[in-house]
Amino acid sequence: MESTQAIQYAQNNRERYLAELKELLAIPSISTHSQNKPDIQRAAEWLTTQLTGMGFENIAILPTAGHPVVYGEWLHVPGKPTVLVYGHYDVQPVDPLIEWTSPPFEPTVRGENIFARGASDNKGQIFAALKALEALLKNEGLPLNVKVMIEGEEEVGSPNMARFVAQNKAKLKCDIILNTDMGVQRPDLPALTYGLRGMVYLELWIYGASHDLHSGGFGGSVANPAAVLCELIAGMHDADGRVTLPGFYDKVRKLPDEERAEIARMPFSDDEWRKMTGVPQLIGEKGFTTLERLGARPTLEVNGIVSGFTGEGTKTVLPAKAMAKISMRLVPYQDPNAVEEQFKEYLRRHAPPTVRWEVRKLSSSPAVLVQRDTVGVRAAVKAMEATFGVKPVFKLEGGSVPAVSLFQANLGVDPVQMGFSLPDDNFHSPNEKLHLPTHNRGIETYIRFFDAAAGR
Amino acid sequence: MESTQAIQYAQNNRERYLAELKELLAIPSISTHSQNKPDIQRAAEWLTTQLTGMGFENIAILPTAGHPVVYGEWLHVPGKPTVLVYGHYDVQPVDPLIEWTSPPFEPTVRGENIFARGASDNKGQIFAALKALEALLKNEGLPLNVKVMIEGEEEVGSPNMARFVAQNKAKLKCDIILNTDMGVQRPDLPALTYGLRGMVYLELWIYGASHDLHSGGFGGSVANPAAVLCELIAGMHDADGRVTLPGFYDKVRKLPDEERAEIARMPFSDDEWRKMTGVPQLIGEKGFTTLERLGARPTLEVNGIVSGFTGEGTKTVLPAKAMAKISMRLVPYQDPNAVEEQFKEYLRRHAPPTVRWEVRKLSSSPAVLVQRDTVGVRAAVKAMEATFGVKPVFKLEGGSVPAVSLFQANLGVDPVQMGFSLPDDNFHSPNEKLHLPTHNRGIETYIRFFDAAAGR
Repeated sequence: MESTQAIQYAQNNRERYLAELKELLAIPSISTHSQNKPDIQRAAEWLTTQLTGMGFENIAILPTAGHPVVYGEWLHVPGKPTVLVYGHYDVQPVDPLIEWTSPPFEPTVRGENIFARGASDNKGQIFAALKALEALLKNEGLPLNVKVMIEGEEEVGSPNMARFVAQNKAKLKCDIILNTDMGVQRPDLPALTYGLRGMVYLELWIYGASHDLHSGGFGGSVANPAAVLCELIAGMHDADGRVTLPGFYDKVRKLPDEERAEIARMPFSDDEWRKMTGVPQLIGEKGFTTLERLGARPTLEVNGIVSGFTGEGTKTVLPAKAMAKISMRLVPYQDPNAVEEQFKEYLRRHAPPTVRWEVRKLSSSPAVLVQRDTVGVRAAVKAMEATFGVKPVFKLEGGSVPAVSLFQANLGVDPVQMGFSLPDDNFHSPNEKLHLPTHNRGIETYIRFFDAAAGR
Repeated sequence: MESTQAIQYAQNNRERYLAELKELLAIPSISTHSQNKPDIQRAAEWLTTQLTGMGFENIAILPTAGHPVVYGEWLHVPGKPTVLVYGHYDVQPVDPLIEWTSPPFEPTVRGENIFARGASDNKGQIFAALKALEALLKNEGLPLNVKVMIEGEEEVGSPNMARFVAQNKAKLKCDIILNTDMGVQRPDLPALTYGLRGMVYLELWIYGASHDLHSGGFGGSVANPAAVLCELIAGMHDADGRVTLPGFYDKVRKLPDEERAEIARMPFSDDEWRKMTGVPQLIGEKGFTTLERLGARPTLEVNGIVSGFTGEGTKTVLPAKAMAKISMRLVPYQDPNAVEEQFKEYLRRHAPPTVRWEVRKLSSSPAVLVQRDTVGVRAAVKAMEATFGVKPVFKLEGGSVPAVSLFQANLGVDPVQMGFSLPDDNFHSPNEKLHLPTHNRGIETYIRFFDAAAGR
């Protein structure tokens, strides 16, 4: 039996929910910037206040070697399953700031969307789950046991999560995991994610002369680290868009024919994707459709590059060093450590002896696949269908959530991957947004999910 | 007859000269930064005060569309030649600031050197010429007529100099030109420069998506402008270190055998050059020695590159755009406009249709060769030999001084290219310095040069 009172309550309280969400979005909890450490703490404290107000217990801000984890639990239905709800309260940096229509930490509603950094990734989603729990607790009551765990380092690759999960196995013990850091396909098409790409994020440094030189006085006699870096990066893809790191594809999971067929049935238009991104033409590895490339194939991307003089006007400098941030998205069966080693082997083979190079690892996590036939997934399918009026599609997601594989390995539970972001929410980009009608449907779906998971 | 009193005066006044030089070096007259415009004005005013104190006349700060030109004259020896002394009072930017041992605008003497931005390029050199003139004026008197012209935009490619020289032909009319923006080979080996490379300085912009994207959600479907920029830059050189722009070498002056032989006789050690620059190994175009490559062959260098996230930590962004500053050093007979067109043609041929590109010209000037058998050059040889005790070598210089070709074209005079910087003065780099013993020899050489040019 459905919790109609809870759903009614969520609908009646939309205005207050939105006001509270704005409070959370106004906190610049950027995990990669050390100067935002106090904001990270503020965001964590804001969440504990929410959990307290909802009636959760054993609420704590649990330290890690980096940013802390917010924890709370409500365990008063013995005999019923325990759900661990996962999300993260940290956000990406905001640059280039100039491209934001409204300031990233002044949440602003325009039309059906609210714009702010973190609106969709992941504050809006974890907030929706908390509000679903609140609605149940204030009405029919929670039909099962719930643990909430919200981390503060997802956007920097969760470097301390492996240790945290391993050390807190008992505390995190559960039957079902709900990973809220996910999205649907369209406002009218719900989706559950069964695969996530992993990631190896590296910095590559190229060193030439011991100091910057005059490009007229020295150009033509010593290697230019910026040019060498460009050559090395250019060589990392072949003409077919394949990554050339030695052995890169050796362990890559072959996409089963049935999954290819399923992906082909997904509503997706290359032309719409091209328009949404604003590129003249799509690109990618030969032999795969765009959706296959996005979810089922590994990639190598330059996330940033810098060398020499990049300010206004001219400076005739021959730079002493150059740096690129390069991340590889991995698919199942690729080992992040092996891929890091392939990257170094590529450099050993191709970096010229006229420079020195260095690789620094910033983060690393394997890809994951989750079971599609579990109690949790069945509950999610039922909840989505009841709310959206259509069955969800199953999809592979191009992004990475390091915690998921840690849950599989340490807790033995495959997460239900259900969130309500949209592909055009501008994750990690200027003008990140949350689509409020889909967000509200998300809150109702979560209410129905907890009911269905409890067999209510 | 030599001006022994003037030389004695210069030696006696070294301490005061150094104190005055420090005043000039303390002014951050960086021409490429608009925020330093007041400092540009201060440097110009400081120079007019110097000229006034020396007894110069018609002193003026002459406006251009950019930074002004400082002018002064002393024309009281009818029948004797007129020398136009050229230099520049603007300097390069100072970044990376962290690599300076002492702050760039707090001139600091350590050992035999004074360290400051502009110490050698070109404040120290033009200052030496002014102090030589002062020494003559306060003692035996000037043996010829002198015009001084000090510009404020050399470090940004002298964008307004063509117009200024063309409009001031009468004012700048002269028999001999002394270009002080030059150097010697070693403290014990004077040199005169007979060739300068030209330059085309461009910005190349690559545009992909209309906004930054999440590299997980979009990587593998749209072009990465940073990676495309790297591919384009990588393709600009072939395996032999030759520039691949179509037609780039068509007009390049073939180095005559006698000049190759002369260059081969220059004291130069690849191994010392390698140690001075700190690189593991030298590089360059096949078939030419290092000194030939530095002076007589054209080059293409990346002066700066930037795209995406380059701050602390990780951001999984697929950048929307990427930019590189690229300058080409030209040798005689290469046309800067033609080279700019070759650059664009390269892009038309090689830029993929998955991105858009744009080229912005920042500066442009042709290479120059000057006559080696003129009254001025003979006077310079005599002065250098008298001061250093050895004859100067003739050399090709890798840098560019746009004003020189403008003087040739508009005034019909080939400059004498004589200055006293050293190859290890860290032009355009952190810890720029001026070697004070060589600087003092420079002042004495200039005194003897004016005498010799006047036939005294």
